[in-house]
Amino acid sequence: MAPKYAPNLRSRLAPLLLFLQTGFIVICALYSDLTILQDSSSQLLGYPLSEFQDVNVMVVAGFGFLGTFLVRYGFSGSGFNLLVAVIATQWSIILNGYESWIQSRRILIDLKSLVFTNPVQLILIAILEVSGFILNGWLLQTFFEVKPLYCAMQLHTFGAFFGLMLTWVMRRKGSETPFEKEKMDHKTGLFSMFGTLFLWMFWASLNSILVDEGERKLRIILSTYLALAVSAVAAAAVSVFTSPRGRINLDHIQKCSLSGGVAIGVSMSLVHRPWVAMTIGLAAGVISTLSLRYLKGHMLLAFGCHDTCGVLSVHGLPGLLGWLAHLTLQINHMVDRTTAIRFAVFHICTLLITLSLSMSMGVITGLLVKWSFWRPPQDRKCFDDQAFWEVSNQHS
Amino acid sequence: MAPKYAPNLRSRLAPLLLFLQTGFIVICALYSDLTILQDSSSQLLGYPLSEFQDVNVMVVAGFGFLGTFLVRYGFSGSGFNLLVAVIATQWSIILNGYESWIQSRRILIDLKSLVFTNPVQLILIAILEVSGFILNGWLLQTFFEVKPLYCAMQLHTFGAFFGLMLTWVMRRKGSETPFEKEKMDHKTGLFSMFGTLFLWMFWASLNSILVDEGERKLRIILSTYLALAVSAVAAAAVSVFTSPRGRINLDHIQKCSLSGGVAIGVSMSLVHRPWVAMTIGLAAGVISTLSLRYLKGHMLLAFGCHDTCGVLSVHGLPGLLGWLAHLTLQINHMVDRTTAIRFAVFHICTLLITLSLSMSMGVITGLLVKWSFWRPPQDRKCFDDQAFWEVSNQHS
Amino acid sequence: MAPKYAPNLRSRLAPLLLFLQTGFIVICALYSDLTILQDSSSQLLGYPLSEFQDVNVMVVAGFGFLGTFLVRYGFSGSGFNLLVAVIATQWSIILNGYESWIQSRRILIDLKSLVFTNPVQLILIAILEVSGFILNGWLLQTFFEVKPLYCAMQLHTFGAFFGLMLTWVMRRKGSETPFEKEKMDHKTGLFSMFGTLFLWMFWASLNSILVDEGERKLRIILSTYLALAVSAVAAAAVSVFTSPRGRINLDHIQKCSLSGGVAIGVSMSLVHRPWVAMTIGLAAGVISTLSLRYLKGHMLLAFGCHDTCGVLSVHGLPGLLGWLAHLTLQINHMVDRTTAIRFAVFHICTLLITLSLSMSMGVITGLLVKWSFWRPPQDRKCFDDQAFWEVSNQHS
Repeated sequence: MAPKYAPNLRSRLAPLLLFLQTGFIVICALYSDLTILQDSSSQLLGYPLSEFQDVNVMVVAGFGFLGTFLVRYGFSGSGFNLLVAVIATQWSIILNGYESWIQSRRILIDLKSLVFTNPVQLILIAILEVSGFILNGWLLQTFFEVKPLYCAMQLHTFGAFFGLMLTWVMRRKGSETPFEKEKMDHKTGLFSMFGTLFLWMFWASLNSILVDEGERKLRIILSTYLALAVSAVAAAAVSVFTSPRGRINLDHIQKCSLSGGVAIGVSMSLVHRPWVAMTIGLAAGVISTLSLRYLKGHMLLAFGCHDTCGVLSVHGLPGLLGWLAHLTLQINHMVDRTTAIRFAVFHICTLLITLSLSMSMGVITGLLVKWSFWRPPQDRKCFDDQAFWEVSNQHS
Repeated sequence: MAPKYAPNLRSRLAPLLLFLQTGFIVICALYSDLTILQDSSSQLLGYPLSEFQDVNVMVVAGFGFLGTFLVRYGFSGSGFNLLVAVIATQWSIILNGYESWIQSRRILIDLKSLVFTNPVQLILIAILEVSGFILNGWLLQTFFEVKPLYCAMQLHTFGAFFGLMLTWVMRRKGSETPFEKEKMDHKTGLFSMFGTLFLWMFWASLNSILVDEGERKLRIILSTYLALAVSAVAAAAVSVFTSPRGRINLDHIQKCSLSGGVAIGVSMSLVHRPWVAMTIGLAAGVISTLSLRYLKGHMLLAFGCHDTCGVLSVHGLPGLLGWLAHLTLQINHMVDRTTAIRFAVFHICTLLITLSLSMSMGVITGLLVKWSFWRPPQDRKCFDDQAFWEVSNQHS
Repeated sequence: MAPKYAPNLRSRLAPLLLFLQTGFIVICALYSDLTILQDSSSQLLGYPLSEFQDVNVMVVAGFGFLGTFLVRYGFSGSGFNLLVAVIATQWSIILNGYESWIQSRRILIDLKSLVFTNPVQLILIAILEVSGFILNGWLLQTFFEVKPLYCAMQLHTFGAFFGLMLTWVMRRKGSETPFEKEKMDHKTGLFSMFGTLFLWMFWASLNSILVDEGERKLRIILSTYLALAVSAVAAAAVSVFTSPRGRINLDHIQKCSLSGGVAIGVSMSLVHRPWVAMTIGLAAGVISTLSLRYLKGHMLLAFGCHDTCGVLSVHGLPGLLGWLAHLTLQINHMVDRTTAIRFAVFHICTLLITLSLSMSMGVITGLLVKWSFWRPPQDRKCFDDQAFWEVSNQHS
């Protein structure tokens, strides 16, 4: 049924997967730090299992189903997500030790937009992005003595701008017009809602997992919950308000309800009062919904940047907002003006490094992955499961 | 595509949401008890995070998807549930402190029936119901010295009768006949099954979250599991038995499997033997399935009370059954006859107060919300996502 | 709408369910060990609640939705799973005490294949299988002094071969050709993916729940995660490689991604290095995908064994592989040759006992359940919800 000219991935995907997987096993067998599970597991003893599982649910089920809203892209959305998640996790364990098992889980936020890619490209992107993010953390920790928690929090900003540059480099002629298959129907909207809700519910675990002190952890959980709650309300309000017919856009609710969690994730270590968390959530929800409503179409026309999942609106802008909130709260706490200015300069530097590294890594990755050796799908096969999955007449 | 005369919520919903949200932030900023997260979070230190999350899953995913069985009401079912849940939770935190973060989560059980409402009305109802329930708890605790755990357990009864009176007040002409769109198809039935199963699985966490002593907690978890298990078996048996063709009704399985959890939730503090838990589950399953099979249609015709989700069968009657079991078990334990009678009178009084407060609050809320200023949907737009959501031609 | 000749289960299912349930309650009321929840709950004090819930999610939601991929069998897949799970759990609590609450949860893995049965038959099978598995554990523990953890790990092998023999005995004329309704569509594939992902995510909790020592538990969690990750990659690679058009089969991803968890589950107590876990996962993924691609159709033609869910490929072969890995690792650790040979003989005996008991129980169960008194569905009603559920014109 499917046209013959859909590129055959047999000679690309299977060898790549087997090569990577064998390589990982060999590295693990040789590399001494990872040799014995007994030792490395003691690194993780502080973290309770239930939070591992919460984050696991977010990555595998949450992100997996978030990407199923496209009518004919559900299998790819959830299937490739699993594949990319397990490879990226293994790679980051090898680079960074078992501690990063927890952290690395969140790295894949921007891959959802890449509907123009095939799974081979996705895997390459994931490996390069994980490497870039770990390099970024290493730079910040070595030269700026930034705390690991703060580095991990930069992830949304890193991922969003990496993804944006990547999409920009990989843009195609004709992609300015919306695609026929880039739409949702009623049932796929519900599957996607399912993914959103799982992300929404477990976001508090994600933000608090690196903190082990009891009271501080609960403070972070409460502020994350409040910020998420307020951003959901703000998303609904702005979505209704900007709709001429007074209707809510499901897409806005699904994406912008999470923006509060992103913004509070970057600033949480300084949020001590509920109203601050709620205000950050409100601002994040409003900015992200407005940008999804107005900026997205504009970007598509002006730059040809086809941001299917609104990575800029959901992760990029709220990440910057959280950074700004962090700066403001920190300066507010300081009595001495000189220290405040020094801190601000330092803080701006860390942002600039993250931004420039993420954007340059994005461009490099884009150029590498664009190479036709990897057999990217044709335009008319984008957004379509048939290009990659045996779906017709399946007698399971 | 959608008809022009669907009421435009732009000028109602957006201002209401923004007003409430800003109000909540201002109250939090001014009101001293909530000012510092550090202090208030210490209230919650006793409760493990994983149970927070279980209850969170129940409220957001469980109730959210439970309401998606109507063919064209899936977006509203899951989307409005999220909106109402976050507003009700914030409101109850403000009224009652952070402790109620946990408790208040369960309050929204009866809102699923309100398909005749628009989101503006839903939010008003949620705020009034939360206030009513907290008032009820305050009355019982102040005048009758009832324990907080027992007050929280009255929730199903309160919610069910509040919802019933509300639906009765808001009934419309012509609503005696079933609606064309009030049905499920095969896929929406599965989404709804998903919601049911998540409620079913985490009900033990819901019942045990307020108890912190290890052994007592496990006893409650085991009895809840047994009661739920038996009520699922009973629901299937009764459903097959009352069907002329010997088929099971999915609706009965989905709703009545939960009735055991409701009944045991009200009586659990006195259940010490597994067979008692199982008998309560059996009775709850049988009563609730019978009432869903026979009583629901009758109520629609006799009172025009359009109880789409069977709140009376699932929460009302099992709640009363659990109350009766609690009374019986308590009296059974007592040797002295005078104390037993005194206790019975006291116990009946608490029920009567809960019932009368819930029913009168329901009537008042119904009258307030019926006001056409809130622009309720027309009859032919009930059960339809198109009235509230931008769904057609969505290029996400 | 449904044809009149679908067998009416009213006089079979309802009495069976009520009889079993009343029987369970009476046994619980009489049997002293279970009388007081307080005592029995102390058995379980060591296990954290969050892991209970993880396994609960696997059994109820994971297995429930795994079985929904057949286009018209979704209600039966998730509904009967709940019914069978609660009856099997109660039965195994009665046989084995509350400890088995945790273990028994995993027993139902092979029931998914039995689409030729009606719920009455399913319940009988579940009761016989639970009894057989507990008998097997008792034999191994009494005569071979095998540790309980190892017995519990034999479950996948027991379940798979029990299920295979059962399907073989219950095979029907004409079942060699695939059925018209035995296929999935795009949405049911996503529901099934949902089930798979929930099993995949919580498999680490399943494997580690019987271990309470902190470090050992984390070691098992890490090895399970790694084995599952590698088997997902291997399944994708083999599926693409063996497809002429270079496409991935969703069915392979869904089933074979779990094979690593089965294999590591049998051998985990001896896996101390990550590369060993990853190699076991790789081998399990490759074997299971190859057998699903080539062996399944062959078995259908040669033996008439209609293995809808690929129980042999997903549980049987990976279970044997894990057993082999356990043997190899154990022998490798030993210095003395005589001990090694003695251990190998002992180890082979435990496998043979499990295999012969599971296969003979499977044949006996098959013969008993085939009896037409139980009114099995006709061929043309297999895979069809209409035979058992009130689905048409449902005004819920």
